[in-house]
Amino acid sequence: MGTGTSGAGSVFASPLEAEQAFYDALVKADLEALMRVWADDEDIVCIHPGDVRLTGLHQIRQSWQQILQHGSLTIELTRRHTMQTVMSSTHCSIECITVRGPEGLQQAYCDVTNVFHKGRAGWRMVLHHASPAAPQAGLHDAQDFAGTLH
Amino acid sequence: MGTGTSGAGSVFASPLEAEQAFYDALVKADLEALMRVWADDEDIVCIHPGDVRLTGLHQIRQSWQQILQHGSLTIELTRRHTMQTVMSSTHCSIECITVRGPEGLQQAYCDVTNVFHKGRAGWRMVLHHASPAAPQAGLHDAQDFAGTLH
Repeated sequence: MGTGTSGAGSVFASPLEAEQAFYDALVKADLEALMRVWADDEDIVCIHPGDVRLTGLHQIRQSWQQILQHGSLTIELTRRHTMQTVMSSTHCSIECITVRGPEGLQQAYCDVTNVFHKGRAGWRMVLHHASPAAPQAGLHDAQDFAGTLH
Repeated sequence: MGTGTSGAGSVFASPLEAEQAFYDALVKADLEALMRVWADDEDIVCIHPGDVRLTGLHQIRQSWQQILQHGSLTIELTRRHTMQTVMSSTHCSIECITVRGPEGLQQAYCDVTNVFHKGRAGWRMVLHHASPAAPQAGLHDAQDFAGTLH
């Protein structure tokens, strides 16, 4: 744990547990915990909304470090949807991101695809692809709000 | 083949073969061929750039029908990146989409994640998540253009 560049130190028994740890780390602005969710693999991919695709632990760590230096991110997941095989799990959700701006709290919505692979160290994230959602995204399947993470 | 709502009729021996068939179908504006690439599963997901997430064969078919009624789509894939397990394959690429507009040919770039699962009928698409790419996305890894599909 705490090596800064390695995903070693945590074993997630399910992809949902790994995803929970990912969003818990964001709300705590805990970069080390966040990076422990990622697979220790140079092929991992992170796409922030509208930004250049990042590959590998180093680039991905740097990007989250920049984001989290502004503080924590409170993200609720809605419309959660999972497609699983024996060694992989693909999760599509709507992220409802609450940010504190100059005009107070504001909300933004993103479509997100998170992919997890099962390896010797349990389930780890290999892909996070977030993109701006349609304006009405947050209004769909409102009943899903009961299943939010936070 | 040609049932209109079923993915039956084609067997793709690899996820790359399925992905090739997907983009070949777009350049031919062949809706039936396009839908044969998708898994015959109500859990499949399609996210067009900035649009509401679609789930299941019916919604996904309707959306592509609307898109293809305007004509074919010529899409080059660059920066192709694959993460595979025994039964799944996650492909991240940049789509360079050429469209004919009122001012002539124009290009748009999208980040795309395509996920394929291996089933009894070979490899099929279960997710297509496309989103607007950063303006400089098309300039990265120019050498990858040699590996474009078309």
